[in-house]
Amino acid sequence: MPITPARNTAVTAGRPARNGRCLPSGTMRTAGHGGHDVRRLRDILRAAVRGGSYPRGLLPSEATLMAAHGASRATVRAALALLRTEGLIERTQGVGTHAVVAPVETSLPEAHGVITPAHDSLFNQRMRPRELDRSVLPAPDTVARRLRIAPGTPCLRLEYVALHQDEPIAIATNYVLFPEADKLRDTPFVSDWYRLLADSGVALSDSEFVFDCEPADATLAAVLGIREGTPLMALEQLIYDLDGRPFDLAFIHTRGERFRFVSRGTSPTLS
Amino acid sequence: MPITPARNTAVTAGRPARNGRCLPSGTMRTAGHGGHDVRRLRDILRAAVRGGSYPRGLLPSEATLMAAHGASRATVRAALALLRTEGLIERTQGVGTHAVVAPVETSLPEAHGVITPAHDSLFNQRMRPRELDRSVLPAPDTVARRLRIAPGTPCLRLEYVALHQDEPIAIATNYVLFPEADKLRDTPFVSDWYRLLADSGVALSDSEFVFDCEPADATLAAVLGIREGTPLMALEQLIYDLDGRPFDLAFIHTRGERFRFVSRGTSPTLS
Repeated sequence: MPITPARNTAVTAGRPARNGRCLPSGTMRTAGHGGHDVRRLRDILRAAVRGGSYPRGLLPSEATLMAAHGASRATVRAALALLRTEGLIERTQGVGTHAVVAPVETSLPEAHGVITPAHDSLFNQRMRPRELDRSVLPAPDTVARRLRIAPGTPCLRLEYVALHQDEPIAIATNYVLFPEADKLRDTPFVSDWYRLLADSGVALSDSEFVFDCEPADATLAAVLGIREGTPLMALEQLIYDLDGRPFDLAFIHTRGERFRFVSRGTSPTLS
Repeated sequence: MPITPARNTAVTAGRPARNGRCLPSGTMRTAGHGGHDVRRLRDILRAAVRGGSYPRGLLPSEATLMAAHGASRATVRAALALLRTEGLIERTQGVGTHAVVAPVETSLPEAHGVITPAHDSLFNQRMRPRELDRSVLPAPDTVARRLRIAPGTPCLRLEYVALHQDEPIAIATNYVLFPEADKLRDTPFVSDWYRLLADSGVALSDSEFVFDCEPADATLAAVLGIREGTPLMALEQLIYDLDGRPFDLAFIHTRGERFRFVSRGTSPTLS
């Protein structure tokens, strides 16, 4: 089958933006061919860097990248500049370009706490908590609604920074109802949340996440050791007991660049 | 059971930060009690705003929030200021505080394309594509590796902006292998990716996401009608055919504030 030359349809051609309401006029012009080429190459290189595709994290030379992607030197440099701005790579004169950090991939079922973590999982004794708070307080309004209790019902707030290789990667605030709270109250917290639940003799059936993203505010930036405005994953988690009653609501902020969540869906007719 | 007063353990007390490497000295002091109180309230209010808890998106008054959360006026105002900075709420003199946008919640299995979408799902004819590119080109290196083919093997690049209620909410670049590419090549693209696959007669078995977050660069910001630096969800997706062969790799950038992904994990011993 012959390869036709890439037909890079102009963004503006033939399809006028019908969403003028939210796009400032003239915006589409600035996102022309060059911008899309850079973004596409950035997406591909980002996936390679984040996925640990390059041995020892060392990226190929500009010339190699140009050849492998049919890209101009300007496009390669612009794509690398975006990754550097994002803090994912560093370029050192005479040494080359390398990935700053290899993120840990975590399967979503492990993050949900509903399966036994793999040997090399972040959820297999790889984390260490630094507790910020463990206190009993009346459940605030929204917390109460999500946990299906009356506002003011006592709950245990357990808040911690999750450390991985001594670096803060997440901060989580859990609101736990009684009687589970009583079991957690004095149990030593040694690695991750699910280990704490297990050590406290608390069983769970289901765990639900709502995924979102947010910019780090000053407090989160300070706690996580990152710049203000850095994108974070914001997760809300509800954990259910064996009777399907939610007993734990958590607000979790994770450093996206430190780990990635992997989720796999299988067609039910095939599984 | 008596409620003990909230014991707000100081961040520094007793547990010196062992991660001095990435936290500038003195950082922990700046994230003191006030900062954590504001963040906790922000987390709770953010969940309420994002979850559509307030009728007509109208937030309670400052006085009501103070009472419901046992918070000072300064804490309530600081938490609301953070949500306003994030672009989630607007405050109008004499009118009150309201949510700017109600995000659409999307279940992860629907986003994976492996189940029939619910009636009100975003994946049930709720989206419309604006195509940016549909062209055949040699697969770039990393794309080839992920799709387990030789670099340079022809593939179809199909790129589009996903519109919801005429607003751009995501941009996706798909690299599709032949023979599937041949079926997709001339099929009209009318709503979402899974509808396009179905209309092309292409079946899928599995779909895998890697979740990440990133700041919007200039091009993404222009295409999505948002400010540069706004946090986005970055997803890599691999779609598999009925024989378990990956035939489609996509790089997807979604506006986190427009929709949220909901994922539920069930303990296998219970399901």
